[in-house]
Amino acid sequence: MYYDPVEAMDRAALEELQVERLRETIENAKRSPFYAERFKSIDPNDIRTPADVAKLPFTTKDDLRSQYPHGLLTKPLEEFVRLHASSGTTGTPVAVFYTQKDLDTWADLMARSMYCCGCRKTDVLQNTSGYGLFTGGLGIHYGSERLGMLTIPAGAGNTKRQIKLIRDHQVTVLHIIPSFALYFAQKVREEGFEPEDMPWRIALIGAEPHTEEARAKIEKLMHIKAYNSYGLSEMNGPGVAFECVHQNGMHLWEDAYIAEIINPETGEPVAEGEVGELVMTTLTREGMPIIRYRTRDLTRFIPGKCECGRTHRRIDRITGRADDMMILKGVNIYPMQIEQCLMAMPEVGQNYLIELVSDGISDQMKVKVEIKDEFFVEDMRALQGLQKRIAKNLCSEILVTPRVELCQSDSIPKAEGKAVRVVDLRDKE
Amino acid sequence: MYYDPVEAMDRAALEELQVERLRETIENAKRSPFYAERFKSIDPNDIRTPADVAKLPFTTKDDLRSQYPHGLLTKPLEEFVRLHASSGTTGTPVAVFYTQKDLDTWADLMARSMYCCGCRKTDVLQNTSGYGLFTGGLGIHYGSERLGMLTIPAGAGNTKRQIKLIRDHQVTVLHIIPSFALYFAQKVREEGFEPEDMPWRIALIGAEPHTEEARAKIEKLMHIKAYNSYGLSEMNGPGVAFECVHQNGMHLWEDAYIAEIINPETGEPVAEGEVGELVMTTLTREGMPIIRYRTRDLTRFIPGKCECGRTHRRIDRITGRADDMMILKGVNIYPMQIEQCLMAMPEVGQNYLIELVSDGISDQMKVKVEIKDEFFVEDMRALQGLQKRIAKNLCSEILVTPRVELCQSDSIPKAEGKAVRVVDLRDKE
Repeated sequence: MYYDPVEAMDRAALEELQVERLRETIENAKRSPFYAERFKSIDPNDIRTPADVAKLPFTTKDDLRSQYPHGLLTKPLEEFVRLHASSGTTGTPVAVFYTQKDLDTWADLMARSMYCCGCRKTDVLQNTSGYGLFTGGLGIHYGSERLGMLTIPAGAGNTKRQIKLIRDHQVTVLHIIPSFALYFAQKVREEGFEPEDMPWRIALIGAEPHTEEARAKIEKLMHIKAYNSYGLSEMNGPGVAFECVHQNGMHLWEDAYIAEIINPETGEPVAEGEVGELVMTTLTREGMPIIRYRTRDLTRFIPGKCECGRTHRRIDRITGRADDMMILKGVNIYPMQIEQCLMAMPEVGQNYLIELVSDGISDQMKVKVEIKDEFFVEDMRALQGLQKRIAKNLCSEILVTPRVELCQSDSIPKAEGKAVRVVDLRDKE
Repeated sequence: MYYDPVEAMDRAALEELQVERLRETIENAKRSPFYAERFKSIDPNDIRTPADVAKLPFTTKDDLRSQYPHGLLTKPLEEFVRLHASSGTTGTPVAVFYTQKDLDTWADLMARSMYCCGCRKTDVLQNTSGYGLFTGGLGIHYGSERLGMLTIPAGAGNTKRQIKLIRDHQVTVLHIIPSFALYFAQKVREEGFEPEDMPWRIALIGAEPHTEEARAKIEKLMHIKAYNSYGLSEMNGPGVAFECVHQNGMHLWEDAYIAEIINPETGEPVAEGEVGELVMTTLTREGMPIIRYRTRDLTRFIPGKCECGRTHRRIDRITGRADDMMILKGVNIYPMQIEQCLMAMPEVGQNYLIELVSDGISDQMKVKVEIKDEFFVEDMRALQGLQKRIAKNLCSEILVTPRVELCQSDSIPKAEGKAVRVVDLRDKE
């Protein structure tokens, strides 16, 4: 019923395991130059409950950057077999190093995650994610092989060939970026097939935050069940938290991580069930433990127990990044709020784009919205009405009224990779 | 001194091992629909020496195509964890399936191969090959991790970033396509570095046939030792044969494969040391054994023993493909002959292109050749002299006189992937 019995472990025992592993992690971390210095006065024996993790200082992305490349390593470099790195286009990159044992641990977590949403050894998985330095590709790949699925490393792009592979090899599980999934469904039709005739049954659509509405759309258009997941390379990559078949939040693997939700301003824990910044501590990583990492991702713990019987707590879908927040006329706005609002309207098509512009006096938001063909009629009055309704709905969500521009299907350029949702033109005007 | 003692095994014992494994392979192959039919009257006990493999029928690429996708599998599909496939742009693709045990065997062969040319656990390998369905990417990747090298899955493209990674992480081993290596050396200089200041020491430059002259050029321009290798996805992928530090032929791992060299016309073995088509049989693949596979690649066994002490025979670099052969005015010509001839001339730059054209009466060959800047002078007479010398040298090699066109550096388009060397315009004119 579970991939690993630890998934349904009694909470008291699970928390004991966390305490034991946290103590070991602190001891181990002190072997790295960075934590040796920072944890000088930390005694692992002061940890008596998982909540005691709050006695330790935070680690930030800037810390990782300042320690680039080797400051967090607890072992000599020759003990490591894998490196992943952020692109570093905006300054010093962040590099994450893995020992063979770390790769094994990660593959097991990934296999457990995919099992959790219904993948089995008898499934055939096609990985449409790019490989390389991005952890999504190799992370899913190793986990899929570990679970024993027949794994097709298709990589990104070449949709026509992807469709042929899916049909030829009866692919049942697809790893796909949400913004690519809708495009994919359309391509399937262009190739002369109906999504319901495709052999697939499960889409793993993590890697990119998206709304419940976007999921519903993917499930409907692709005729598939879509499961959300959460991960970040600082915590290995994908496989940190994964939805089970009940699709009501992502089980965060608490035998491998301690998760906290804090107020990003004060650093204090938020009240039970409230949204805040997710802070993560590795419990099973030997080569590069990271303690109290400020993910900048906003989410909350979902209260209550899950019907699946897993005892690991669930986090809600990511509602934004502490860094993605736009400030417009003094109001805090997250792109996810806008997506949620748009996707709830039946007239809205597959793509949208937020532009922040400045008219020299104040900042303005322009939202370009693709409208489905059947609603993109020649009746100007109907279109103006729709435009007004969108603006009004958005205003009630974000408290400012944006300019809304209606666009035809496919008129907003699509990225095959991660979708660009916000273009900030304020500096350039 | 060796990664696996089997590499220096006494030849008599090695051949005994081959016989034993070939018998097992025949038994196992009969579990697949294709070989069950084809080997109906084959008795494994008729195999008494490795040469007895010649009693078995050939397997061709057309056989693999006709059996697409599952005809050669000896186990139920759920026992497989990986699929690689050719692009199939020109007809039915070829798919190769791997069990977990097959992936392990392959990773071990790859690790052994890289150890053989001097790679060690303490090295840092950057893989500039694309991942995905092409076996070069994941093949090298798994082998590198298996050997314990720190492995950077950089993937293809983004040369600037590749250079930063190499410098930041003191990369000592580079997996790079030969035609990309020369471009890379140039980019390093454009970024303001000298190749001799780069931390690298070993380039693995298989994946694309190339001449000894091309290797010499890569070694000089990159200030690196470059090692050739051989592989094909039908025989797992890379790691079939690899050069040792003596760089005099590629040791073909005879505990894992039986290799024959035959006359592609008659199917009979060629004389010792003569060039012919390489025919390969897997000895350790459980999920999809392939017997007497016509690789279409032309090479020869290098006579004599290697100083390194490995007893596995060496094949020479691939001198062409049985299929690549051009027939011009009744003469058989391989592109590799032309490359070899051009690269031996000091005036010749980094790139060339062969065009086959028809003037309506007979076929002609045009060879576009990039000339180094220092030789691309305004002295028309000197250029005409060079042009004639190139034509003459080519004629003495291929027995027909091509039209030669001199080009400036960088004027022939470069592929970041596999180089296009021959363009056949004869049908279109």
